[in-house]
Amino acid sequence: MLQRVLRSGNNSIEAKGMLQRVLRSNLRCLTTIPAPLVVTSFDHATKVATLTMAKPPVNSLSLEMCHEMSSAIHAIEADTNINSLLLKSSSSSIFSAGLDINEMHHPDPVRLADFWRAIQQIFLDVYGSRLAVVAGIEAHSPAGGCLLAMCADYRVMASDPKFKIGLNETNLGIAAPYWLGELFVRTIGFREAESGLALAKLYSPQEALKINLVDEIVDQADVLDVAKAHAVQWAKIPPLARSSGKMNLRSPYINELILNREKDIDDFCSFILTDNVQKSLDVYMEALSKRGKK
Amino acid sequence: MLQRVLRSGNNSIEAKGMLQRVLRSNLRCLTTIPAPLVVTSFDHATKVATLTMAKPPVNSLSLEMCHEMSSAIHAIEADTNINSLLLKSSSSSIFSAGLDINEMHHPDPVRLADFWRAIQQIFLDVYGSRLAVVAGIEAHSPAGGCLLAMCADYRVMASDPKFKIGLNETNLGIAAPYWLGELFVRTIGFREAESGLALAKLYSPQEALKINLVDEIVDQADVLDVAKAHAVQWAKIPPLARSSGKMNLRSPYINELILNREKDIDDFCSFILTDNVQKSLDVYMEALSKRGKK
Amino acid sequence: MLQRVLRSGNNSIEAKGMLQRVLRSNLRCLTTIPAPLVVTSFDHATKVATLTMAKPPVNSLSLEMCHEMSSAIHAIEADTNINSLLLKSSSSSIFSAGLDINEMHHPDPVRLADFWRAIQQIFLDVYGSRLAVVAGIEAHSPAGGCLLAMCADYRVMASDPKFKIGLNETNLGIAAPYWLGELFVRTIGFREAESGLALAKLYSPQEALKINLVDEIVDQADVLDVAKAHAVQWAKIPPLARSSGKMNLRSPYINELILNREKDIDDFCSFILTDNVQKSLDVYMEALSKRGKK
Repeated sequence: MLQRVLRSGNNSIEAKGMLQRVLRSNLRCLTTIPAPLVVTSFDHATKVATLTMAKPPVNSLSLEMCHEMSSAIHAIEADTNINSLLLKSSSSSIFSAGLDINEMHHPDPVRLADFWRAIQQIFLDVYGSRLAVVAGIEAHSPAGGCLLAMCADYRVMASDPKFKIGLNETNLGIAAPYWLGELFVRTIGFREAESGLALAKLYSPQEALKINLVDEIVDQADVLDVAKAHAVQWAKIPPLARSSGKMNLRSPYINELILNREKDIDDFCSFILTDNVQKSLDVYMEALSKRGKK
Repeated sequence: MLQRVLRSGNNSIEAKGMLQRVLRSNLRCLTTIPAPLVVTSFDHATKVATLTMAKPPVNSLSLEMCHEMSSAIHAIEADTNINSLLLKSSSSSIFSAGLDINEMHHPDPVRLADFWRAIQQIFLDVYGSRLAVVAGIEAHSPAGGCLLAMCADYRVMASDPKFKIGLNETNLGIAAPYWLGELFVRTIGFREAESGLALAKLYSPQEALKINLVDEIVDQADVLDVAKAHAVQWAKIPPLARSSGKMNLRSPYINELILNREKDIDDFCSFILTDNVQKSLDVYMEALSKRGKK
Repeated sequence: MLQRVLRSGNNSIEAKGMLQRVLRSNLRCLTTIPAPLVVTSFDHATKVATLTMAKPPVNSLSLEMCHEMSSAIHAIEADTNINSLLLKSSSSSIFSAGLDINEMHHPDPVRLADFWRAIQQIFLDVYGSRLAVVAGIEAHSPAGGCLLAMCADYRVMASDPKFKIGLNETNLGIAAPYWLGELFVRTIGFREAESGLALAKLYSPQEALKINLVDEIVDQADVLDVAKAHAVQWAKIPPLARSSGKMNLRSPYINELILNREKDIDDFCSFILTDNVQKSLDVYMEALSKRGKK
């Protein structure tokens, strides 16, 4: 079929779209196109869907990853027989490392704006979901990984103290956007959020539990079972009353971002494109690269 | 006197008012007109007034109950020699069961709107009172009972673990209005409020104390004495400074509801009149009725 | 040198400035001009500046004290090699006693408005500072002293239980302004702030630590060393990311006061000039005066 399309000389947009799909599906067999970045499954008996982040090695949030996650969430939301969403990682060593630094290091300005809009969208989709979202956090969850976790209704984390969760952007010379700071405040309170942000604190599961950054800590081997059990329990709550009560509390924050979306994109892009931030990222990327060569 | 009035043939409005009062007082003796739904008393020595909810069996908040409560509070507020209000129940088994389900089950739409406006008014009156309000919670305080308690400045609850307090509306398929959700957030924090609402949690007095949903727990026999002692203590604080400080913190929320009052009534009525909610209430009322027959 | 300047007849602005400085330093020796009310020092090696309140006996916030503090903070902010500010008292028995009562007792109305604007400015300057502010609280810190402490990013307090911190204005018949109430809420949560304000609570260091009104308590002898060490640590954080994250969370409150500044001044002045408040202050000042004579 690829041959036929290539030979057809048809220049219409539809043909180009078909060509791209054919190329992609053929090339994937040759392992030159990556596997899907997220995997979803539906359990209609319990009304629970699962979204697994599957972008090795660290589920970094690139533009493509954000797009795939948002598409997957929209598809799950569209299934009216699903009430709960279990959010997890395919890796047992990391939930998500957060924003893909490559998107911010000497970026194309137009793509940078698209990237930030996609990050905002993930927040809007997960935090504003009608679904009861349970995060199963089997391992590290720094920065954007912590953002994803905080968008859930309930968080179960592995109890091994080596794992860390928190907003450590400041260490990289990057400020969390105002809506992420506000989400941190809603989750752990104003004082802890202020010092956690400033000091780029990465909390152990025990510390995270104490300040309500996670709701429950269990053995790593049990995280997904426990999280699934919560998702099943939440799926049994009258769904409209549950989601209305949730939206009553969350929509002021969601609407504020929707109103300020373009300004927030401008602010983020201007900040990232400053020499200061780019120099910070140069240092960080060089350190990463050296560590990679060892 | 009744005979005299009936015979007088005087058609003036004043005479009609007098007639009604006479009829009411006479008929009450015959027990065909119910006793007042609330009882107030004034202790000018301590500057403390007491409002006792006295609507057996469960102090449910019907339209009439709301009207009587608001009238009683306005009368107490008007007495400039009173600084504190003790809010309590005539029953030792329940503080208040909250909204009267009969007002929401296949309701007359016009009365439903009046009912919701009266519920809003109770919130505005108690939460916005210049008085220091102390709630003496001798027993259960679910749903609207919890709302009333949260409007107070200080809450003393009986420590028997069989008693429960919380916002369990979601279990009935009903979402708490946004302003009640916000009041819950101000009382126990954002995270606990979100999960408490979603899971329709009913807290024991010990749990309620831990999350600051109540301020003090004591033996049931001591609740009213302890609550009264607090009301007396608060009555001694310079009243204008105390109420100004309180209003500085509360008025943004009170004003928000005043601005959104009609929209909130529309939202509530539309929600209650949906098939989904009415079916939930059918099931609930049938269960109640069966339980009553046993 | 004074003689030389006086004789030179040079009328340039520079000469006048030099003249004033010389006059001031000479006259200070004659003790007719008071010592500066605040003392600043700069440690460029650690990027930490220190502002010492030095207005015996209790560092009361008079109009002049507010002006000197604001000027000192502006000068420190202008030094781009400084990242942190250590705020402390020259007295080991009090951090600051707060507002100077003399500014409010039978005041000149024009000066009263200037005074309140200057108090607002201290809040705007310290709470809105780009610097990481660490408060070293070696002793009592009531009312406006607590306000100053709450404007910091980190608070270290002496652990001796005889020392107290809190907003006790209500006892004097004065309500805290709305923005101070809100700052109290952000620091210790809504419920504790409401009851702390109403009951004019003065917390021991142990109680203050429990509710997050201070971040750390240590022996009085160690307060300044520990506070300095924190200031040094905070100075090492990438400063732009740190201050951006802080401003994201604080600017909504700061901007609200900037917008409402004149109304807040009007409200405060009207309140203070009422007979009720002036009578409260009469009683308080008489008690102070009697205590002084003993």
